[in-house]
Amino acid sequence: MTDDAPKAAASLAIICGGGSLPRVVAEAVDRAGRRCVLFPIRGWVEPATVAAFPHHWIDLGKYGRFRRLMQTEGCRDIVFIGTVLRPSLAQIRLDWETIKTLPAIFRAFRGGDNHLLSTLGRILDGHGYRLIGAHEIAPDILVPEGPLGRLAPSARDEADIALALDLLRATSPFDVGQAAVIADRHVLAVEAAEGTDRMLERVAELRRQGRIQTRPGTGVLVKAAKIGQDHRFDLPTIGPKTVEGVGRAGLAGIAVVAGATIMAEPQEIVRRADAASVFAIGVRSLKAQ
Amino acid sequence: MTDDAPKAAASLAIICGGGSLPRVVAEAVDRAGRRCVLFPIRGWVEPATVAAFPHHWIDLGKYGRFRRLMQTEGCRDIVFIGTVLRPSLAQIRLDWETIKTLPAIFRAFRGGDNHLLSTLGRILDGHGYRLIGAHEIAPDILVPEGPLGRLAPSARDEADIALALDLLRATSPFDVGQAAVIADRHVLAVEAAEGTDRMLERVAELRRQGRIQTRPGTGVLVKAAKIGQDHRFDLPTIGPKTVEGVGRAGLAGIAVVAGATIMAEPQEIVRRADAASVFAIGVRSLKAQ
Repeated sequence: MTDDAPKAAASLAIICGGGSLPRVVAEAVDRAGRRCVLFPIRGWVEPATVAAFPHHWIDLGKYGRFRRLMQTEGCRDIVFIGTVLRPSLAQIRLDWETIKTLPAIFRAFRGGDNHLLSTLGRILDGHGYRLIGAHEIAPDILVPEGPLGRLAPSARDEADIALALDLLRATSPFDVGQAAVIADRHVLAVEAAEGTDRMLERVAELRRQGRIQTRPGTGVLVKAAKIGQDHRFDLPTIGPKTVEGVGRAGLAGIAVVAGATIMAEPQEIVRRADAASVFAIGVRSLKAQ
Repeated sequence: MTDDAPKAAASLAIICGGGSLPRVVAEAVDRAGRRCVLFPIRGWVEPATVAAFPHHWIDLGKYGRFRRLMQTEGCRDIVFIGTVLRPSLAQIRLDWETIKTLPAIFRAFRGGDNHLLSTLGRILDGHGYRLIGAHEIAPDILVPEGPLGRLAPSARDEADIALALDLLRATSPFDVGQAAVIADRHVLAVEAAEGTDRMLERVAELRRQGRIQTRPGTGVLVKAAKIGQDHRFDLPTIGPKTVEGVGRAGLAGIAVVAGATIMAEPQEIVRRADAASVFAIGVRSLKAQ
């Protein structure tokens, strides 16, 4: 498919996963004066998230239908945004366009999430679409450098942050879920398939059981994108729920890489961080320093 | 304190943590014809574990009493064995000998377990004791190379094992709890403060919730000692409970580093592994190959 119409005029397709971010991005595109068409993935997205915009529900495995809708809408540019659930192959009904693409998709399912997403990206690129990062369309969804709320990390927290960034750099080649909790230089938790919220619940539970000896108010959650991760698909995200999880886990705060982390509902992040007396900060990755 | 008596004649002190291993080691020492005196740590050890041997209950923080008992018993050689709970400083009542040692102990409490144990080791060495690894006294508690039970890993399992050993080597400098679960090259879980049993419960739960897409019977638990870990204090351990956790998590099996992993109740490990159709294997670390 080729499209010689000027890019600025063409509608932007937003493939929507879960959470509130798809609406935030759609509103930003709308404010910038560009038409957008939302493609919420059935089962992952609340109908209210997309109700205010032109949208078509799509199914994983129905790639042919997606391509026809893209042509009808005159879309070439695609943004992926929202929470991705690793799909069960058994639940997917395939159409013909998808079946033709299956060998590449199966290869993508072996290996980690990073590999899966970059393969899907290559497939779409190869079919004449242009993938754009949500942060390129709506740069104000990225965490800036410095504290978001009232509090800032102590020198001890900063040592924990630096150690956690080193740890995440070491695990990066293994396509692990890129978050860790470190308190007083002791690694309390490393995130993998369970996700950040469950990892924080685990830390809260270990603390209730007396298995964490550092005082409440010690320790940091650090999230960082994998090295080489394609920012068009998948950036670490924090939201009000992350802040509450950090508070319940008895940590001092959250640190994420500035300019490479998406924040959902920034005002609410600040409000809850201040209410729970935890810091939330965008830091430079050590690599950039 | 110096002890010029021949080592073979002197009693061996076994400081006992939790679990069944202290008794296994004491029985091995007994069979070898050497007298041993057990020092179970109060609160960590079942009385039945030590009942058959001369023993003195000790408390963390009562180092002076421990030194006097060691002198009375004529012991210089010490073995540490059994499950260690990271103690809460608040629960410890200190005697004078301990207070003198506090600055070094406090330094040890900052940082990970490996650092804690090696510092305690240096303190004991400095006081004229000789620390010996349990595996030096009872080498048959170490996992040998090759499958323990009926089953062996498939080629796919072997690829997961190799990837997990690489991951654990990468996390080793961060003093993380040295175990991971990988299925079909996808990292499902990395162990930190929660311990192996809880990590396996998490994998079982993720599978029940449909968040793991690989088939039941896929994936491996791999445990490996940290690089530079002092084998006199702390070697990875597997037991019947580990095997059952692996079965419940729907994994294909367990791989540990041969010659650097302790097995509790080997016959029971084999019986339960065969009953649950999982493999349990001692592998060479990649470093040694």
